[in-house]
Amino acid sequence: MSYEQLTTHYRTISHLENILGLMHWDMATMMPRGSAKSRSSEATTLKSICHELKTKPKLADWIEAAKAESLDQWQTANLREIERDYHHSNALPNDLVKAMSDATSACEIAWLKARPENDFEALRPSLQRVFDLVRDQAAVLSEQSGLEQYDALLDLYEPGYSSAQVDVVFSELESFLPDLVGEIIERQRQLGPIIKPEGPFDIETQKQLGRDLMDALGFNFEHGRLDVSAHPFCGGSPDDVRITTRYTESDFMQSIMGVVHETGHALYERGLPADFRGQPVGKARSMGIHESQSLLMEMQACRSREFISYLAPRLRKAFKAEGPGWSTNELLRSYLEVQRGLIRVDADEATYPLHVILRYRLEKALLSGDLAFKDLPAAWNDGMQELVGITPETDTNGCMQDIHWHMGAVGYFPTYTLGALNAAQLFEQATNDIPSIPEGIGQGDFTELVAWVREKVHQKGSLLSPTELMVSATGRPLDSEVFKRHIKRRYLEQ
Amino acid sequence: MSYEQLTTHYRTISHLENILGLMHWDMATMMPRGSAKSRSSEATTLKSICHELKTKPKLADWIEAAKAESLDQWQTANLREIERDYHHSNALPNDLVKAMSDATSACEIAWLKARPENDFEALRPSLQRVFDLVRDQAAVLSEQSGLEQYDALLDLYEPGYSSAQVDVVFSELESFLPDLVGEIIERQRQLGPIIKPEGPFDIETQKQLGRDLMDALGFNFEHGRLDVSAHPFCGGSPDDVRITTRYTESDFMQSIMGVVHETGHALYERGLPADFRGQPVGKARSMGIHESQSLLMEMQACRSREFISYLAPRLRKAFKAEGPGWSTNELLRSYLEVQRGLIRVDADEATYPLHVILRYRLEKALLSGDLAFKDLPAAWNDGMQELVGITPETDTNGCMQDIHWHMGAVGYFPTYTLGALNAAQLFEQATNDIPSIPEGIGQGDFTELVAWVREKVHQKGSLLSPTELMVSATGRPLDSEVFKRHIKRRYLEQ
Repeated sequence: MSYEQLTTHYRTISHLENILGLMHWDMATMMPRGSAKSRSSEATTLKSICHELKTKPKLADWIEAAKAESLDQWQTANLREIERDYHHSNALPNDLVKAMSDATSACEIAWLKARPENDFEALRPSLQRVFDLVRDQAAVLSEQSGLEQYDALLDLYEPGYSSAQVDVVFSELESFLPDLVGEIIERQRQLGPIIKPEGPFDIETQKQLGRDLMDALGFNFEHGRLDVSAHPFCGGSPDDVRITTRYTESDFMQSIMGVVHETGHALYERGLPADFRGQPVGKARSMGIHESQSLLMEMQACRSREFISYLAPRLRKAFKAEGPGWSTNELLRSYLEVQRGLIRVDADEATYPLHVILRYRLEKALLSGDLAFKDLPAAWNDGMQELVGITPETDTNGCMQDIHWHMGAVGYFPTYTLGALNAAQLFEQATNDIPSIPEGIGQGDFTELVAWVREKVHQKGSLLSPTELMVSATGRPLDSEVFKRHIKRRYLEQ
Repeated sequence: MSYEQLTTHYRTISHLENILGLMHWDMATMMPRGSAKSRSSEATTLKSICHELKTKPKLADWIEAAKAESLDQWQTANLREIERDYHHSNALPNDLVKAMSDATSACEIAWLKARPENDFEALRPSLQRVFDLVRDQAAVLSEQSGLEQYDALLDLYEPGYSSAQVDVVFSELESFLPDLVGEIIERQRQLGPIIKPEGPFDIETQKQLGRDLMDALGFNFEHGRLDVSAHPFCGGSPDDVRITTRYTESDFMQSIMGVVHETGHALYERGLPADFRGQPVGKARSMGIHESQSLLMEMQACRSREFISYLAPRLRKAFKAEGPGWSTNELLRSYLEVQRGLIRVDADEATYPLHVILRYRLEKALLSGDLAFKDLPAAWNDGMQELVGITPETDTNGCMQDIHWHMGAVGYFPTYTLGALNAAQLFEQATNDIPSIPEGIGQGDFTELVAWVREKVHQKGSLLSPTELMVSATGRPLDSEVFKRHIKRRYLEQ
């Protein structure tokens, strides 16, 4: 009975979270600018009602009582996730939550101003304030969970993962990736300049191509939408998944791969177990698993030679274009160009982990106090030179490029690279299990691939930990060797 | 202090109501079809949280305590409106609310099926069930307020109005309007057939024309949007007013006047007193006042010769059209055509009140039991013949055309005609106060008119009762003579 009460209660909470998802989508896509202030008050009210529901004192009694009830595997996992959510929601004292909300709002505003002005010193005090509060937060979470402070933060995004595990994976990457990037760049240089399609590229055509690809990937427009926003995202809720992209006439490659990426996220949301809709166990597992689903579609499936050979004639037809830049070979070269770039979000899959490793190192050092905030720009630049082989000329394109820290998201960055490694491992396993997958992709048929990830990943919701999920799907925990193999095969051997 | 607690509490409620407004707008404009079920659960959850907040037992204590506090005129009115809302929210027992929600859902579904099939008998039991519950609702409200049962329902939409007052106004209308309609139709017949612009009319052009008119009327796109929905409405919230319209290539007149109509509603919402945002006294006064604001713009201002002479050259330019149907005279004739039609929503301003009077008569008779449900179709047809001078051949176009009764909205119909009469009276007063208003309208300049209604109507929120508001704005209560004068002047004398 107590378990039943909990599920009813969490269903209510999920309704409110879905509404917040809609409000966020609307804010990014439809809302007129002048409504920002009223919308923000409305969201704050709804969030605080959500928080009240999540911290209701009776929940603790229900959770304890439910532990004595006879529950099956899924219900037991749901109870575990409910307890986890309950502890997280109750852990932080209200004044810390409030202080964090004020500090991150102030820091985001300072960042929006300081970043284009390349003025890190103007930003520094508010960033430091955010980290001070993140440290308080980590201390509370750490005391409650017994985890190390950084691990307590990481656990918010990637349950069960420790920095010891991340250290292992990242030091493996560090041991081979910088050299590999050098080799790739040299090989690409030797092949001569890439001939790129020349624009402008009609935006309606880009939209239609994106929608066609979403159809091919199995996106259900009866339960979702594609819209435009400044920063692409996948939002809404599992029964109403709304993805966005952005268009520019000068480049179609970005919007198309952006759509594929967000569609990967969307398929995960839609594929979550419907029997546990609205329950914590029915939700996406972690940020690293979520990112694996977008990268599996974007990086593994859709930057493959098979897919580009399917895409190329369709691009030529859609844009009524011809010429050397439109051949499968040249398009593939365009889509696989590796560069020592300054900006993480523009990075290719080979250099991306190096950007993440830098942030991981620095945020740990800032949190522990080993790195002083005044020394962040120099440490950033040194790290970029060491890892990526390039030094930013401004902090705008250096340590101020990402919003995460200013929002208080410390411990989040590693999940991008965990996602990339998960994706490589899942895709390799899928093609081992079903060897005809690449051929299907070459015909724009993703049915087998989607069915595989649906069964092995989506349908599991939060039944397993991220590591258990990888073991269950691929027979072993995360293994950086698979990613290494993937990069070598794609960039040095094909 | 208690008054302060109440205002904080009602601000929270208004945030949730605004969110419900956004959800409704999204459902009608953006939501993919497959999400209807999950969205409906989410809305139910939010509504029930709203209802809980509105029926919190402490509210009664706060209200009583606030009465002893020192409040100014606006605060006193706010307390009155809060008490009114509290009584309405608490009046109905939960099982009646639940039964009503189930019965109206069932009846709406039955109506959607029976209406196109012209099968009133299939619909009858569920409609009867709804009326049975509406009668229970009226009995509870009547006992609480001391009003007659029908009046207790009417009071939900038009506070302070009684059916005795409606009877007076409606019998005045009945005494002259049918004859007047006959005269107008005869006069229009004698002028020969109206030459109408010939389509198709490009939809993007219609959209741009609509947006231009919204600009001219003072709609602020920083706080609102224009979108498309099957049934036009004005929704959202005062700081984010979202109107919709629908387009057809075969007719531009509908979409343009539809936009003007909804813009009238929107200007009212935007013009409500910002100091009382989120408070009951800061809300729109009543349905009849709301409708007066849309009809003031659509019927009074924008179907005037002045406005059509401003519009005509802009239409010709936008549609790159010429010919006799595009002259100011012929366009005015098109926009003022009076017909004995079957459908209320398509009716012109002269016959519209007769459609309403029929519904008012019938819903009172159904509620009191004077009319049996099996006799409704015949009574409808007789009434149509008597009032409008035409008999429906089907119940689809007869007693099944409107959704209101099936939703349990009994006592709502009169507000359409109260709105039309309010509009005529407000517009006459505005032009008496500021004689240059018509000239402004002739130049597409609505500044003076909007400033007048903003001061006299919008800024009053719910400070006054509808009747007090009309007295304050025009010096006297609702007077059907003004409407009569307006119709005669426009249709028989110009």
